Amino acid sequence: MDFEPRDPDFEQRTRENFSSQGFMRTLGATMSELEPGRCRLELPFSEALSQQHGFFHGGAIATLADVSGGYAAFSLLAPDRTNLTVELKLNLLAPGLGESLVAEAVVLKPGRTLTVCRSDVFAIGAGDGQRLCATALATYMAVDRS
Amino acid sequence: MDFEPRDPDFEQRTRENFSSQGFMRTLGATMSELEPGRCRLELPFSEALSQQHGFFHGGAIATLADVSGGYAAFSLLAPDRTNLTVELKLNLLAPGLGESLVAEAVVLKPGRTLTVCRSDVFAIGAGDGQRLCATALATYMAVDRS
Amino acid sequence: MDFEPRDPDFEQRTRENFSSQGFMRTLGATMSELEPGRCRLELPFSEALSQQHGFFHGGAIATLADVSGGYAAFSLLAPDRTNLTVELKLNLLAPGLGESLVAEAVVLKPGRTLTVCRSDVFAIGAGDGQRLCATALATYMAVDRS
Amino acid sequence: MDFEPRDPDFEQRTRENFSSQGFMRTLGATMSELEPGRCRLELPFSEALSQQHGFFHGGAIATLADVSGGYAAFSLLAPDRTNLTVELKLNLLAPGLGESLVAEAVVLKPGRTLTVCRSDVFAIGAGDGQRLCATALATYMAVDRS
Repeated sequence: MDFEPRDPDFEQRTRENFSSQGFMRTLGATMSELEPGRCRLELPFSEALSQQHGFFHGGAIATLADVSGGYAAFSLLAPDRTNLTVELKLNLLAPGLGESLVAEAVVLKPGRTLTVCRSDVFAIGAGDGQRLCATALATYMAVDRS
Repeated sequence: MDFEPRDPDFEQRTRENFSSQGFMRTLGATMSELEPGRCRLELPFSEALSQQHGFFHGGAIATLADVSGGYAAFSLLAPDRTNLTVELKLNLLAPGLGESLVAEAVVLKPGRTLTVCRSDVFAIGAGDGQRLCATALATYMAVDRS
Repeated sequence: MDFEPRDPDFEQRTRENFSSQGFMRTLGATMSELEPGRCRLELPFSEALSQQHGFFHGGAIATLADVSGGYAAFSLLAPDRTNLTVELKLNLLAPGLGESLVAEAVVLKPGRTLTVCRSDVFAIGAGDGQRLCATALATYMAVDRS
Repeated sequence: MDFEPRDPDFEQRTRENFSSQGFMRTLGATMSELEPGRCRLELPFSEALSQQHGFFHGGAIATLADVSGGYAAFSLLAPDRTNLTVELKLNLLAPGLGESLVAEAVVLKPGRTLTVCRSDVFAIGAGDGQRLCATALATYMAVDRS
């Protein structure tokens, strides 16, 4: 599906918003791609992101899924609007084992109030290229920028 | 519901496992209470955990929900078993605004293979005491310790 | 939590709305209790509701969870509003084996636009009284009655 | 993804299992396509399946999503195994308005114990061809046939 952005400056506005999240800096995530209704985030592995077996922690995977979907939705908002996560559902499909994670999110249903996104999270460089390690469905609510 | 732990040393084993998660140190989370089938985690606020409005990031909230449920389930495992998150569903109910978060998880249904937990996450000290800011349902799978 | 209904005639309005659902008649579900922010539905077993092992079908359980939560939320709406299910998440905890199902739903977070409910579904009369067979989290959106 | 069935007679076994569900007869659902790891169900509209606005009831949509995913997973099982729904998450994206519903399910991750499926539900013939009205993620557990 192709989406028409309401704001021609959506990219700058979306990237600035992403940059203002302290938790993204803590994790070390970057926004590697952004198109209207689509967002791709990347996160290199470090021991600071690990669970008890030395893989990416499920919480880091969930965060990447949430944030990638949130900015896929945000890219379609009018300039005076922002959004909040309403709910997130994540299935972990394979261990988060690799040199980095990539989350690819796409808007499934845009709406004035609610937008639903899917995000797939891949583990990269785990010997065999890339592997789908999680998939998520999430709902975001648009609100006026205060 | 009261649960009988399979392992009399469940507390030490559970706390050691928690301590081995690099991501918990990165966040600064501590396990403040542990009983068979119940776990309470605490997380003080810092700018490193924030989203764009300066509140706790939803990813940190999701992580706390996931981990508290995981260790509530882990506390009931036999000593030669560990567990993995299968899936997590989180509803965000109020902004994560406060001095700290507390996640309280309880086992709803223990099983040989699958255990389902509920976790409620509260924002503490936000002027009016504590406020429920998220609730989660999650499924964990027991596997042999490798 | 106690809720104050916006509409003093909430009970009649909610029950009339429930009665207008053809699918509730097809299943044979009744609304046995309604209070502001709370709803209880009952559904007697019949072979018409069964899955391949002769138990209540998971789809009937999911439906009861969805509808009980929907009317718990509906009971708090203003008279000129109705609501839609945004999303539902259900964990099945035990087989749907019994003479009837009871779904008990409660509003966790009421809102002008979105309301989040929890619904617990019990199997009744399965030898040992009642058993929790499913739990759900669901989000409902209020809209103007057209 | 292409899947190799463990049972060469998977199709007959899967269709017989589907036919033994009383609730599928009550709804009037048919299995229109089955391949290893994929299942398509169809459900014609009737007033018996309606909600208060005369559209397909969300419970019928949830049921179709659950069952289509369940049989997509079932098609990959060994002959002495069957499966149960562990959990289901459904986002409703558009009203269930049309002459029929079609649910298309695919296995995202097959496993010895757990299989995760996605199911998309379309409303057909609503003036503009077909429309995605819901998407679901669900987890199924394989167990020995008793």
